[in-house]
Amino acid sequence: MPPTPLRCLRCDRPTGSFDGCRSCAAEGIGVNAMPPLADLSGVDLARYPGGPWGLPTALPVTGKPVTLGEGNTPTIRLRTDPDSGRRTESTGELWLKYEGGNPTGSHKDRAMAVGVAAAVAAGADTVVAASSGNAGAAAAAYAARAGLRCVVFTNEAVPAGLRAQIDALGAERVVHPGTALERNEAMGRAVAERGWYPLTSFSVPSPGGNPYANEGYKSVAYELARDFAGRRIDAVVVPTSRADLLGGIGRGFRELTAAGLLASAPRLVAAEPAAAAPFTAALRHRDRAEQERTRVASGPTVAFSLGEESPCWQGLDALWRSGGSAVALDDEAILAEHRRLAAEGLVLEPSSAVASAVARDLVREPGALVVAMGTATGLKGLVG
Amino acid sequence: MPPTPLRCLRCDRPTGSFDGCRSCAAEGIGVNAMPPLADLSGVDLARYPGGPWGLPTALPVTGKPVTLGEGNTPTIRLRTDPDSGRRTESTGELWLKYEGGNPTGSHKDRAMAVGVAAAVAAGADTVVAASSGNAGAAAAAYAARAGLRCVVFTNEAVPAGLRAQIDALGAERVVHPGTALERNEAMGRAVAERGWYPLTSFSVPSPGGNPYANEGYKSVAYELARDFAGRRIDAVVVPTSRADLLGGIGRGFRELTAAGLLASAPRLVAAEPAAAAPFTAALRHRDRAEQERTRVASGPTVAFSLGEESPCWQGLDALWRSGGSAVALDDEAILAEHRRLAAEGLVLEPSSAVASAVARDLVREPGALVVAMGTATGLKGLVG
Ligand SMILES: [Zn+2]
Ligand SMILES: [Zn+2]
Repeated sequence: MPPTPLRCLRCDRPTGSFDGCRSCAAEGIGVNAMPPLADLSGVDLARYPGGPWGLPTALPVTGKPVTLGEGNTPTIRLRTDPDSGRRTESTGELWLKYEGGNPTGSHKDRAMAVGVAAAVAAGADTVVAASSGNAGAAAAAYAARAGLRCVVFTNEAVPAGLRAQIDALGAERVVHPGTALERNEAMGRAVAERGWYPLTSFSVPSPGGNPYANEGYKSVAYELARDFAGRRIDAVVVPTSRADLLGGIGRGFRELTAAGLLASAPRLVAAEPAAAAPFTAALRHRDRAEQERTRVASGPTVAFSLGEESPCWQGLDALWRSGGSAVALDDEAILAEHRRLAAEGLVLEPSSAVASAVARDLVREPGALVVAMGTATGLKGLVG
Repeated sequence: MPPTPLRCLRCDRPTGSFDGCRSCAAEGIGVNAMPPLADLSGVDLARYPGGPWGLPTALPVTGKPVTLGEGNTPTIRLRTDPDSGRRTESTGELWLKYEGGNPTGSHKDRAMAVGVAAAVAAGADTVVAASSGNAGAAAAAYAARAGLRCVVFTNEAVPAGLRAQIDALGAERVVHPGTALERNEAMGRAVAERGWYPLTSFSVPSPGGNPYANEGYKSVAYELARDFAGRRIDAVVVPTSRADLLGGIGRGFRELTAAGLLASAPRLVAAEPAAAAPFTAALRHRDRAEQERTRVASGPTVAFSLGEESPCWQGLDALWRSGGSAVALDDEAILAEHRRLAAEGLVLEPSSAVASAVARDLVREPGALVVAMGTATGLKGLVG
C-alpha cells in the first residue's frame, strides 16, 4: 500500500519527498509536508491504552506496528513552593510528563516507532538519522527491533552515555567531521544515491523531521486528554528545537477538539535556551510574514540537544493556533531548574528543565493547570 | 497511626523490627516479617491505573503517597526465533516486562515509593540504604521527593552512571571500605543509635528488605493480571538475589487468586547468575528443611546486582506455592542474552538478561505464555 500522500502545511502543495515543501523553502521557510489530520470521532479515550500504537488508525502507516512499549508515560505533580527569591505563592498545579520512561529514555521513541514502521512499509533495508541527541538512540533501537540496518550521523559533542547506547544497539555511528550543513549534505546523498530511509531531515531550512515519525507525537496529546479527563489543561510547555514535538502535540490536540473529545486545546508554549531561540525571536515580530522568516545565530548551551537557526513553520503554526507563546531562558536558569528537579527526585536532561522552568511562571495564575514536557532522562549525560 | 503489625512469614511470630524474624534467624534462616495479605475483593482490575499507589488499599501504609509516577510499565513481546545453535522452534509467547521505564530506571522504584512513604509515616527525617545497585538510586530519588535526608552505603563496585545518579539526587553516598558484613553492621548502628529509617536490610542472614517497601512489588502482579486479562500466564521469570521482587510478585498473585481476580497464579521461576545461585542450589535438596538452610559461596558476576549466600525464605515460599523452580546461568550465557536483547532494541542491565535467557527455554512448550522481568535499564552501566 502506498504511503498516505503529503501536503505542505503552509501552502497546501502536494509533495512526496522528505525534503519538506521546496516551494516554501525557496521563500526561506522550513515547513513539513504532512498527511491529513486523523478523524478521532467515536474514539473512547478512557479505553485508550496510550502510545502511538494505542490508536493506530490515527497514524499514516498501515503496516505492522514496530514497538518497544513506548508512550503511556506518567504525569508527575511537581512542588510549587515559592522560590527563595520570590514572594509570590504559586496557586496553580504544575505537572511534568516524564518521557524519560520511554524504552530508550526519551520522547523520540514515540516518533521512531512510527518512522521505522513507515520505513518497513516503504521496503527500506537501511534507515539513517543525523543526530547528536536522543533521536539517534531511538532510531537505533527501533531499527534493531524491526531488523533494519541503522546509520547514525553524529558530531563530536555526543555525551558518552548516549554514544555507548547507540553502539550497544548495533547502529553504525558515523562521526562526521564537518559542519551540521555538511553532515546533512552527506545524509542527503545517502538517501538519494543509496536509497536509505531518512528518519530525520537533511535539507535547508530544516522542514522539521520525518513526517510519518512526527505523527507519533500526537499520542502525547491523547494521553494528556485521557489522564486529565474532565479538567481543563491551560498550557503545555514544550522544549523546542525543530518543533517536531511541539508540532505533533499541536496536531494531536486539534484532532481531539475536532472530534469533540476535548472542549478546548491548551495553549502551547515553546521553551528555548537563550543561546538558540528562534521562536522567541520570531514572536517578537508583529506580523506573521516576518515571524516566518526569522533567523537567529545559535550558540552553545547546556541544553545540548536544542539549537536551530530558523523556526520550523509548523511550530509557529502550533503557537498561533493555540494562542501560545515562546520563552527563552539562559543556561544559569536552566541549570538551577535542573538542580531543583533533582532535589525533587527527578534527574532529567537539561532540555527538559527549560520546559519546567518556563512552566513555573505560568502556574502563578490561580487555578492554572500547566504541563511541562520532561523530554528525556538525564542518565545519558551524567558521565563522560 | 501505628504501622500495620508484622508477623514472620515462616513461624508466624509477631515482630516489630526491621531485622526479620530473630527466632528463625537463630535457626540460620533469613525470613521477613510481613503485614497480612490485602483483600482485593471487589477490585475492578480493568480500571486499575498501575503502580503501587494505583491500589493504595493493598499497601500497609496509610500516610500520603510518595510518588514519581512509578509502575505501569510496558510488557514487550520478544522475538522467539530459533537460536542459531538449536533446531527446536519456540511455539510459545515470550514477553518482557520493562521496569527500566520507572523514574530512576529500575523496579526498585516500586518499593522505595512505598518504603519512603512508610518512613514519613514513621516520622523519620533520615532514610538509609545499603546498596551498590539500583536500590540506592531509588532510595535517593524518593527521599528527595519526600524531603527526607538520604544516606546510601555503597562499595567500590558501583558503576559510574549509578554513582553519578545517586549524587545528582542529593543523597550522601558513603563508600564503606569493609566487607558487606561490616557495611551492614555500620548501617545497623545508624538505625539503632541515630534512628535512621532502614530501606534495606542489615541483619544476617538477610531477611530480604524493608517489609513495607517490598509490598510495592505486588503491583507487578496486578499489572500483569490486568494486561493479560483473560489469558493464562504460565510462568513469570524473576532475576533473584534477596528475593524481594520474587516474594512481592508472589504475594500479589496470591492476593489476586484469593479475590477471584485471577483463575490461577503463574509458576514463578528464580533466575540466578551461576556465580551466586542459592535458590538453584536449594531446590536440588529433597526436603524443605534442607532447602531452607542452604548456603552457597558467591563469586563475582556480570550481573553485579545479584549475589547472596543464602536463599531468603520468602523466595523459597514463593517458588513452593507456585510450583516454580530456579535456574542458574553462567556469565557467558548472560552476556549472550544481553547482546540478543540489544539486537532487538533493548539495552537492559545484565541481571535482566538472566531472566529472559531462562524464559526462552520455557516458551518452547507449545502455547506457553511466559513473562521475564526486565528489572532495569542498561544505561547506568554503559560507561564508567
Ligand atoms: Zn509550501
Ligand atoms: Zn520466624
